[in-house]
Amino acid sequence: MTTLELTKHLVSIPSAQSTKGTHGPFEVDVAQFIEQYLREQLPESWVIERQPVTESRYNLLVHNNTAPEVMLLGHMDVVEIGDGWTKSSLGQVVEDKLYGRGSADMKAGVASIMHALVAAAEKNIPGIFGLFYCDEEYDFVGMKTFVKDYTGPKPALAICPEPTGMRIRQGVRGCFEFHITLQGKRGHAARPYQGINAYRVLNDVVVGLDAMCEGKDNPDLGKPTVNVTGVRCGAVDGWDEHNRPILNNAGNVIPDYCEAVLEVRMTPDVDKEGIRDVVEQVATKAGASLTNFQCRFDLGSYLTDKSALVKLEAAQQAVIGKVEYGDPAKGGYSDIQLIAEAWGVPCALLGPSGGKMHAPDEYVEIDSVEKITEMFLHIIGSTH
Amino acid sequence: MTTLELTKHLVSIPSAQSTKGTHGPFEVDVAQFIEQYLREQLPESWVIERQPVTESRYNLLVHNNTAPEVMLLGHMDVVEIGDGWTKSSLGQVVEDKLYGRGSADMKAGVASIMHALVAAAEKNIPGIFGLFYCDEEYDFVGMKTFVKDYTGPKPALAICPEPTGMRIRQGVRGCFEFHITLQGKRGHAARPYQGINAYRVLNDVVVGLDAMCEGKDNPDLGKPTVNVTGVRCGAVDGWDEHNRPILNNAGNVIPDYCEAVLEVRMTPDVDKEGIRDVVEQVATKAGASLTNFQCRFDLGSYLTDKSALVKLEAAQQAVIGKVEYGDPAKGGYSDIQLIAEAWGVPCALLGPSGGKMHAPDEYVEIDSVEKITEMFLHIIGSTH
Repeated sequence: MTTLELTKHLVSIPSAQSTKGTHGPFEVDVAQFIEQYLREQLPESWVIERQPVTESRYNLLVHNNTAPEVMLLGHMDVVEIGDGWTKSSLGQVVEDKLYGRGSADMKAGVASIMHALVAAAEKNIPGIFGLFYCDEEYDFVGMKTFVKDYTGPKPALAICPEPTGMRIRQGVRGCFEFHITLQGKRGHAARPYQGINAYRVLNDVVVGLDAMCEGKDNPDLGKPTVNVTGVRCGAVDGWDEHNRPILNNAGNVIPDYCEAVLEVRMTPDVDKEGIRDVVEQVATKAGASLTNFQCRFDLGSYLTDKSALVKLEAAQQAVIGKVEYGDPAKGGYSDIQLIAEAWGVPCALLGPSGGKMHAPDEYVEIDSVEKITEMFLHIIGSTH
Repeated sequence: MTTLELTKHLVSIPSAQSTKGTHGPFEVDVAQFIEQYLREQLPESWVIERQPVTESRYNLLVHNNTAPEVMLLGHMDVVEIGDGWTKSSLGQVVEDKLYGRGSADMKAGVASIMHALVAAAEKNIPGIFGLFYCDEEYDFVGMKTFVKDYTGPKPALAICPEPTGMRIRQGVRGCFEFHITLQGKRGHAARPYQGINAYRVLNDVVVGLDAMCEGKDNPDLGKPTVNVTGVRCGAVDGWDEHNRPILNNAGNVIPDYCEAVLEVRMTPDVDKEGIRDVVEQVATKAGASLTNFQCRFDLGSYLTDKSALVKLEAAQQAVIGKVEYGDPAKGGYSDIQLIAEAWGVPCALLGPSGGKMHAPDEYVEIDSVEKITEMFLHIIGSTH
């Protein structure tokens, strides 16, 4: 199969998980297809190993027992299909694009990896390691499990074909997501000096975090930023059966309760350990207390020196006639961050061109699918 | 009955309404008792009139058909009883205090008015007007109805015995409560420049309102203040069956939705009409839009010149040996505001000493109950 044919096949297999990670079908059928296909295509000397993640979900590790030089990795799950599609979410070619959920993010990339593994086997190239993993789109348990449980030798370079428009993305800011609850003091709005408005305390916290990020720009990764993504504030009148506060929003009441979800995108100069301190100090200074601080994600930034990416640059040059980097300051989180953080090996994204990822009518540009495969063949040395 | 006995009787009659104003028993039984008592005590020449407010609730207007000089007014409803009482919520005397829901706020005051009306009748004093009204504790519909529907002559002075610790309170800031919804633009937290965080827009709005209030202090009424009392913020994933947004609080999403309840306590220099403009301008400047602006309360400030309150000062001097004013800057809303606003007549609060209003173990100091009655007798001239 060509990479495009493989991509189409992968897209035709549902592998979505809900945004809350609570229901599937998940990527199990995709994993079975990849495993079966590679067992057919690869010689018996190659190892295809299931690494358990949950009771029913697993990662696939594929290698030929040689010291890994290049690791190619891709996630098998996709986000929910959602409404609003004008093309088939299970794959439809229209002109120069393949539409479908996961076409760009990242079944085309997975197909390129499969193709590169088969090419490596055909040409007997050592040191190529494939990792297909689960649950990138929600809780990253696939990659977390891999990093925790994998005890084999580490590769010299890790590449993930997330859709980057065929540009190399060699870093990304860190990501620290946390939930807080601030307890102020209820009072009467006519006498604000008697109460402590929990909303105002949240504002102070945000100002404090903004200040903490100030001047911590990184020439490659850009500015650190603070996102407040959810807020619920009011005066607690009681607690419901789920132990959630029943909030009173009468205008004459100074609210004593504010919960919020925040996320800081961090450059290496941001003191991650200091985030909780800032929240706590600001709350205390305001006379409030921090009754909950729960970190949900704590992912370090990474930035690979371009000198470690000459193979990728050469492949770009050969296939598209230019070396082109994406702006790491504009990149979202990718699981490769966990590998960079855990192993400190050079890491980069390099994948096809696509659009509408996570939205209806997601697509990948067909031309770019084959080009990424060609680049991968260059990188692993199969074109020599 | 003495004023204390009357107060005890009034406290023993449940008249609470829920904080949402949705369930009672409300003040109907109290109204019936007041009406019956006054019919027994007052000569037939006195008018006792029910002014309809809702299908089952009404105000009571009591006068003797003379041009009103002094209007004494009090509300008959009380706030919900709530939990945490160590004394009976229906009245219990312990040492020098009468405990019970409404003891201070404001059944003792109502009893003082009843007593004063009877004294006026006994001494044939003209120009005394009593108003007992409903629903002070939630939506002010009793007073709103009175101001709208009453077409008789206006009094020269209006006094309400809310619990003021026997001090005169001759003004209060205005109160403007409103609900807003701000629509920002959803985006990915890694690229904040692509989204408009609705929470940040709310912050801008609050800063704008704070700035609007800056320098608008009034020597008697104090500072204008802004209270944010409720906030709900997130990214809209859909709408539920009540047309409420289903909010996504994932850390990597820039939220496009923020609703909030705000209340501004206004001095006369605050441009009330300008509040909406500030919200709208700030939202527009931030690239967001104001999709809802709903005023819930719009109550003007009032401030009575002390020269119009010589009768109250003389009564204080006679009964407690000093003239004492409460700080209007620390006062909450009172329905007398609506009378001051609608009629422009001198208005003041002067009531007993109490504590824990709206809380468990509300009480009134017994000594102050009789003293307020004495002051009222002075004011209406029944002691001459």
